[in-house]
Amino acid sequence: MIDVAIFGAGRIGKIHAGNLVRQPGTRLRFVVDPDAAAAAALAAQHGATVAETDAVFADGAVRVVVIASSTDTHADLIERAAASGKAIFCEKPVDLSLDRARRCADAVKRAGVHCLIGFQRRYDPTFAAARTRIDAGEIGTPEMLVVTSRDPGAPPVEYIRRSGGIFKDMLIHDFDIFRWILADEAATLHATGSCLTDPAVGEAGDIDATAVTIRTKSGRLAQINTIRRAAYGYDQRFEVLGSGGMLQAGNHAPTEVVASTTNAVSRDLPEHFFLERYRAAYASEMAHFFAVLAGKEKLRTTVDDGLKALELAEAATTSWREGRIVKMA
Amino acid sequence: MIDVAIFGAGRIGKIHAGNLVRQPGTRLRFVVDPDAAAAAALAAQHGATVAETDAVFADGAVRVVVIASSTDTHADLIERAAASGKAIFCEKPVDLSLDRARRCADAVKRAGVHCLIGFQRRYDPTFAAARTRIDAGEIGTPEMLVVTSRDPGAPPVEYIRRSGGIFKDMLIHDFDIFRWILADEAATLHATGSCLTDPAVGEAGDIDATAVTIRTKSGRLAQINTIRRAAYGYDQRFEVLGSGGMLQAGNHAPTEVVASTTNAVSRDLPEHFFLERYRAAYASEMAHFFAVLAGKEKLRTTVDDGLKALELAEAATTSWREGRIVKMA
Amino acid sequence: MIDVAIFGAGRIGKIHAGNLVRQPGTRLRFVVDPDAAAAAALAAQHGATVAETDAVFADGAVRVVVIASSTDTHADLIERAAASGKAIFCEKPVDLSLDRARRCADAVKRAGVHCLIGFQRRYDPTFAAARTRIDAGEIGTPEMLVVTSRDPGAPPVEYIRRSGGIFKDMLIHDFDIFRWILADEAATLHATGSCLTDPAVGEAGDIDATAVTIRTKSGRLAQINTIRRAAYGYDQRFEVLGSGGMLQAGNHAPTEVVASTTNAVSRDLPEHFFLERYRAAYASEMAHFFAVLAGKEKLRTTVDDGLKALELAEAATTSWREGRIVKMA
Amino acid sequence: MIDVAIFGAGRIGKIHAGNLVRQPGTRLRFVVDPDAAAAAALAAQHGATVAETDAVFADGAVRVVVIASSTDTHADLIERAAASGKAIFCEKPVDLSLDRARRCADAVKRAGVHCLIGFQRRYDPTFAAARTRIDAGEIGTPEMLVVTSRDPGAPPVEYIRRSGGIFKDMLIHDFDIFRWILADEAATLHATGSCLTDPAVGEAGDIDATAVTIRTKSGRLAQINTIRRAAYGYDQRFEVLGSGGMLQAGNHAPTEVVASTTNAVSRDLPEHFFLERYRAAYASEMAHFFAVLAGKEKLRTTVDDGLKALELAEAATTSWREGRIVKMA
Repeated sequence: MIDVAIFGAGRIGKIHAGNLVRQPGTRLRFVVDPDAAAAAALAAQHGATVAETDAVFADGAVRVVVIASSTDTHADLIERAAASGKAIFCEKPVDLSLDRARRCADAVKRAGVHCLIGFQRRYDPTFAAARTRIDAGEIGTPEMLVVTSRDPGAPPVEYIRRSGGIFKDMLIHDFDIFRWILADEAATLHATGSCLTDPAVGEAGDIDATAVTIRTKSGRLAQINTIRRAAYGYDQRFEVLGSGGMLQAGNHAPTEVVASTTNAVSRDLPEHFFLERYRAAYASEMAHFFAVLAGKEKLRTTVDDGLKALELAEAATTSWREGRIVKMA
Repeated sequence: MIDVAIFGAGRIGKIHAGNLVRQPGTRLRFVVDPDAAAAAALAAQHGATVAETDAVFADGAVRVVVIASSTDTHADLIERAAASGKAIFCEKPVDLSLDRARRCADAVKRAGVHCLIGFQRRYDPTFAAARTRIDAGEIGTPEMLVVTSRDPGAPPVEYIRRSGGIFKDMLIHDFDIFRWILADEAATLHATGSCLTDPAVGEAGDIDATAVTIRTKSGRLAQINTIRRAAYGYDQRFEVLGSGGMLQAGNHAPTEVVASTTNAVSRDLPEHFFLERYRAAYASEMAHFFAVLAGKEKLRTTVDDGLKALELAEAATTSWREGRIVKMA
Repeated sequence: MIDVAIFGAGRIGKIHAGNLVRQPGTRLRFVVDPDAAAAAALAAQHGATVAETDAVFADGAVRVVVIASSTDTHADLIERAAASGKAIFCEKPVDLSLDRARRCADAVKRAGVHCLIGFQRRYDPTFAAARTRIDAGEIGTPEMLVVTSRDPGAPPVEYIRRSGGIFKDMLIHDFDIFRWILADEAATLHATGSCLTDPAVGEAGDIDATAVTIRTKSGRLAQINTIRRAAYGYDQRFEVLGSGGMLQAGNHAPTEVVASTTNAVSRDLPEHFFLERYRAAYASEMAHFFAVLAGKEKLRTTVDDGLKALELAEAATTSWREGRIVKMA
Repeated sequence: MIDVAIFGAGRIGKIHAGNLVRQPGTRLRFVVDPDAAAAAALAAQHGATVAETDAVFADGAVRVVVIASSTDTHADLIERAAASGKAIFCEKPVDLSLDRARRCADAVKRAGVHCLIGFQRRYDPTFAAARTRIDAGEIGTPEMLVVTSRDPGAPPVEYIRRSGGIFKDMLIHDFDIFRWILADEAATLHATGSCLTDPAVGEAGDIDATAVTIRTKSGRLAQINTIRRAAYGYDQRFEVLGSGGMLQAGNHAPTEVVASTTNAVSRDLPEHFFLERYRAAYASEMAHFFAVLAGKEKLRTTVDDGLKALELAEAATTSWREGRIVKMA
């Protein structure tokens, strides 16, 4: 039986807890959360115990930690887990500071522990199928990528203030998609943006809509467009053009009902937000993590992937702030 | 220069006139219509002359007649045209009476003139492509057919009273689609129906919604569903299942705009009615007719097709009225 | 803790077992299957015990039975469960004999136990949404229904021989959909069919393709088309036309990838077969059953629904065999 | 009767000639083309006369000229037509040189003649409907635009050498779409690109794939992606996000056939190239032009639109060549 501790009993922590208890031979032992009620509720649901951080790391029987707590705790928890030889499943980002994230990555590598960074989109059935079909040569050499990534509504401005900015908070997923789908690294990056949905976002020193262009070392082109608020919901798509064709990875809808009435032929809006759209992705991500622990699969979203995405987010922030094209190392 | 006379200056007559004047080397000479104003307007538009029926048939220079007048005039005009050796383009049906239609067909055959019956759906780009792809073997042997044929709204009850009933007036097209797509003839036919949209239709001795099932001589199955009123417009589809797959022939829409708003993801309704949906079909049908006259193509919708569809319409009427399955000869 | 016994450890039994252990406060106690290895494997997976039928019924602690064993055992097991006051979740059909099924239904009613018959399609997200939207008045009064129900491939002929015929084995689901969606009962029924996929089916006295038409007591029309083999997979759709519009309930696909290559713009085939297509439906069905036991919901697929669908299947068999329209009582 | 002369009897000249002779009260008088055979053929088709340029401008009866000749002749012909008071329908671009184009625009304005520049995409039914629906407020305030514009295959390198580069030759249409749909002007522009389809394009000093980002004066964002070769054909789409939703303007397909076979569910590729995709647009554009001449409509694609698109194309060329963000005046 593999004993697991989870940090964070919020909405994403609950998702991960529900998925990990379905892994055969796995048990949720500890739940850690400063919100005692949330911790207790999640612990009760899965027959686990509420614990303090120190107790978790002191317990040699805990072989795996799932880090779903607030971003500012990630780096410390990763390092402590690495130091105590526990396998790590951590939500993105590693840290808002690139330096800090790099030190963290070093610690993971020195310790030689598995560390999955939660780029769950790579595990989405549609996105993963697109990648598999690219690998199978269905569209020849990938050449151009367009990523559309829109949230249904902006979070509170207090959240945005602590978020590290839209590029680290929101586009970090899209930067990972870029690297994963084009299988190439950025040579130059241009980012611009605007504050279109709420002036308070601008007053907080951030933007809520962005347009990013990346040219890769081999000359491939990627464009990303994002916004914090799309009236029709959570829009998560990309399309990749290759020398032999195009693959479009589209939104998922709750049902396949088509209504024809006096005005239009209409279908469902996309799944409401990330918990719904990426439900299958989260489940598949956790199953993959345990397959890695069992030696059956090779880790697909590593701490280095976390670093690379963060580097792009930092470059984009610079490009936007300074109004210039950024050359990547 | 081929001189043509047209009978009927109503909406379908106008369509045919517009298409025929685009055929190279063709000229609209005469327009015949009891509605003098309509005749004059159409004649003026195309530099033609208003004429009486007798004058048209007396004019040996007129080599082609287009019959787009009321149904009760079709058979007489076909026979007169055949007798005077003119090529005939006639709207469906040949006649509401099967006996009369048969005599008419005999006259055409004896005269040896070309006679196209206006089953324009066979010339629709989507429907024609489906048939071409079946012929190319894309879905193996056709086995089952589902035809959906719905009008946007019922005509006035006075029209329905003189229409010959829904099977001869509306489903005659669907019976032709059945024969054309399954490339087989009916062995048994079952028809039922209801008066769902307007009690006045029932009082006129007709129905406005039907469900027909045909089993062919080789055991293939077809189902047709029709209604006089679909709230979302003109619905013209079929799907054919073969041993190797399925082809679905769908509606055409005015534009390819997709709107995502707070309620739904929506597309255009289908083209409003037959004049819009079958615009390209009517043009293609006329071009085919002149290609037949030029000896370049073989006539695709013959007076025999008109007879066969009428036989099915009559069988369906009997099946519905007498509540029994009808065996075809 | 609610103790449950399951009869049948085959593929559908495994699905139900997996779903029932996810119901809070529920435990799988016993697995019964003549195939000892299958029973042992399923019992081991869920910490249950392999048992004999008599032992299950003798154990008063078992409050619920799930019947996923072969069709010929359903009626006996239902009656024994009813007699011992256990709640029943039983796969369709109740029995192949209408008389036997009626006695069974009487036993259930006398005992006053809950008995869910497994018409899982009613719990499919797409189908259920269609029904909910009809109830909400989105398309006015339902008037016409077209059901398309096709399997990816025919079962072995030995299976077909014992199946009760295609109407009881396969269309029973479609008859239930008909009753549920049109919310009406059949007045007349016409069924025809053919043996199109394999002559051996015909030699076994059955058909593998059918076309059924039902006219309801209030004049609504339904058409069902089915086949045992569709080259492109499991095709499960219906469309319902109402006075105010149409709802189409379509297939589910594994992913939302669209590929544009040199030949075509293409999407995934539908989910392969019932275990995939109705995965969510089976989960929702089981959750509903336990919500009924908890007094929170009203049973949605009753033994009476099972009887009514069986009556239609029997009428369809008669219609097909005798080549006549059947009037329902 | 309005007499018209056309310059250019190539493929686009033929399209325009076919459309203009359908305008009531209009006659094609003269065809001018250095290719005598092409000129003769087009003239013969429409009962026109082959003429020299000087003769056309000397003929006061010619009130309208259609300029569909090679790009390097546009400016001269526009100026001569303006000087002689003839109305002008001219293919894009006005000229490859911005200075030359500006002088040309001045000449048009001084002369006070109508001068339509052939941005035919604005007349496409789908694109025009999108704009109309934006104007109607269906998606609130437009905020972001993504334009996808891909050709089915690159032209010969000799063509590319004389083309003015991809931004003036190909993206000029997309820059016009940008201005038209966002109803705003560019503040900054970033363009990058690569030579992905054929090294010969690079050797000719050009690129064949581009990624452009524009930020408007009011902070709206636009991204354009283009390539000279898409394996699946001519891909002409845009999507515009507004504060209240999104409109996607998609490709047109030749038919609405959907095929389900053992591999996939597939639809037609988009219309092959611009002559097919924009057939209706060209017809509508010409009808609009004559409606303008008749005083019934206001000119929708002016010489100023031609200038503005050219300014963006020049800025994009600079941005790409110099690797910097360009600020627009």
